[in-house]
Amino acid sequence: MRDPRIEGLAKVIVNYSLELKEGQTFFITSGAVAEPLVQALYEETLRAGANPVLDLSLEGTASAFFDLASDEQIDWVSPAQQWAFESADARIRVLSDTNVRELSNVAPERQTRRQKAMHPYMQKMMERSAAGDLRWNVTLFPTNAYAAAAGMSLREYEDFYYRACLCDQPDPVAAWKQAAAETIRLAEWIEGHEEVHIQGPGTDLKLNVAGRHFKPADGKYNMPDGEFFTGPVEDSAEGEVTFHLPATYAGREVAGVRFRFEDGKVVDATAERGEDFLIEMLDTDEGARRLGELGIGTNFGIADGTGEILLDEKIGGTVHLAVGESYPETGGVNESAIHWDMICDLRKGGSITVDGELLQQDGRFVV
Amino acid sequence: MRDPRIEGLAKVIVNYSLELKEGQTFFITSGAVAEPLVQALYEETLRAGANPVLDLSLEGTASAFFDLASDEQIDWVSPAQQWAFESADARIRVLSDTNVRELSNVAPERQTRRQKAMHPYMQKMMERSAAGDLRWNVTLFPTNAYAAAAGMSLREYEDFYYRACLCDQPDPVAAWKQAAAETIRLAEWIEGHEEVHIQGPGTDLKLNVAGRHFKPADGKYNMPDGEFFTGPVEDSAEGEVTFHLPATYAGREVAGVRFRFEDGKVVDATAERGEDFLIEMLDTDEGARRLGELGIGTNFGIADGTGEILLDEKIGGTVHLAVGESYPETGGVNESAIHWDMICDLRKGGSITVDGELLQQDGRFVV
Repeated sequence: MRDPRIEGLAKVIVNYSLELKEGQTFFITSGAVAEPLVQALYEETLRAGANPVLDLSLEGTASAFFDLASDEQIDWVSPAQQWAFESADARIRVLSDTNVRELSNVAPERQTRRQKAMHPYMQKMMERSAAGDLRWNVTLFPTNAYAAAAGMSLREYEDFYYRACLCDQPDPVAAWKQAAAETIRLAEWIEGHEEVHIQGPGTDLKLNVAGRHFKPADGKYNMPDGEFFTGPVEDSAEGEVTFHLPATYAGREVAGVRFRFEDGKVVDATAERGEDFLIEMLDTDEGARRLGELGIGTNFGIADGTGEILLDEKIGGTVHLAVGESYPETGGVNESAIHWDMICDLRKGGSITVDGELLQQDGRFVV
Repeated sequence: MRDPRIEGLAKVIVNYSLELKEGQTFFITSGAVAEPLVQALYEETLRAGANPVLDLSLEGTASAFFDLASDEQIDWVSPAQQWAFESADARIRVLSDTNVRELSNVAPERQTRRQKAMHPYMQKMMERSAAGDLRWNVTLFPTNAYAAAAGMSLREYEDFYYRACLCDQPDPVAAWKQAAAETIRLAEWIEGHEEVHIQGPGTDLKLNVAGRHFKPADGKYNMPDGEFFTGPVEDSAEGEVTFHLPATYAGREVAGVRFRFEDGKVVDATAERGEDFLIEMLDTDEGARRLGELGIGTNFGIADGTGEILLDEKIGGTVHLAVGESYPETGGVNESAIHWDMICDLRKGGSITVDGELLQQDGRFVV
């Protein structure tokens, strides 16, 4: 018998997030190190009458690939992957790093080349997702690498992680339905407003969201989940923001980031650590200095930053802003090759005010 | 740095057995437990300019599949598998059991149903192999399960196994070329003869091989390898044979098997253990009591039976006979749903005489 929280997570993903149906195909991408979760997903998929296809990698395959592959090999996309993007009914990516810095020293242009090779398939996936032909989800399997990045033992991290996934509850599927209701309520409350004013330590920022849509993130595409998000009007950001948690992009970390916005654009950017890399990324293209996302976390099961954005951006009592590409479904139109989320913590004195009405005070929703 | 013998095995498979070329596709089917070998194969494939596709399973997926899958799910073949059989340039199966009795209690009809679903793809694979469009190989990764079945520690088994694969040699690829030359020499020597007379403990058997072809097995399709084989004339077997090693079929083991042949047919069969199952298998169909194969082992790096036929049938100084289906390339025409190899050990007093000339005495080739 395995950890019942892993069974719970598999049930949530198969039956709540992806709602697998009889005869559907389900592509499971993971490191083999996530064996207990993959095995549980495999079994739960069979129980649902669907057909699981395993796409497992080993600890060293990704770094060997970038170390040894020629340009032609980097450009080649396996038929199994092609099928998954073009025809599978559902897919999941299980984050299962055993070394969160595994690819830190890969030449960025090789990673970019690979992303370019995968880009048509990613686009196809998003099109199929938008058309309702494909369900997808990103989740995580607790490893010592994630635990260490979060400053915990593996045992502590597992307790934290499965709590954040509501898998410490007697009926995790029911718990997610309930949590979803609260996230949906908040997204519906804010929809249709105009000005969002964020105040907190080192932060006084106004954004316009008029005509934009707020989307509730309720466990369908990420697990754990818990936020509602939009794309702010691209020339509206005005003021200063301080990001209190370190932020990672392409395997590199920056910390102590501050932005000053004028007419929606980052006109001043500083960082206590990694400032050169930060500036380099902001200069990627025209859209990289404008906001593609405002997200407001609703998962109060996540208390502290872990270094993994899948978790950190959901922390209840924080907001996150992403420079770069918008999500079209929000009405956002910013275009960029990057999308980099950074987190502003309002729990130690801060507020979110919407058209003059207080939405959140010191990290607690008050509506 | 990993065990250099694993690196050697990967080099042998990629560069000698399969001769992978730039741009080719290579489908690697294995349990994730064989990680060091799979990782080495992955890297060696990239070095050869070819494109590896991993098809990894977990320890519990096969038994979960047979436990939980409906008939529809058993009949479903994944697009990744379909592609591999129909279009890949090369494929390998890495035997990597962690429990050699994993599927012992699966209802045989469920396994048969799965084999039936896979049958058109297996046929396609054999056609493509015969046409030179597909290279394939079966190898093994040493696990405690195989070590235990062979009555060894894992460390001892690894020493034994890599020696049998010539991966204890400074240049395993060169060693295989040399070993191949000897197997080919023996196959060429016996080709064109008529009568094979096998004498040994509890054994006095005559077979006719007139017009049949002997094929050298020199590491292209199996690794380790070492035998030459044919399909004897189907009504020719006359006399008695004792099989000195236990024989496994569909996860079940029989031991102490003796056959008496008349006009090519097993007319009396006994076993010290598993006799009922043996008789049941011999009664599968008309061809199940006739010989589909005579093989003569040439790998003197394998000294003792291990319980795994991939290794045991190659033992230098043994012959093996298979009841059931012939290999068409030998000229054999026996048809059966089964092909069950059993091993007769001639090393403690025995001989193979071919048209009156001594080929082997007490397990040593004398030609």
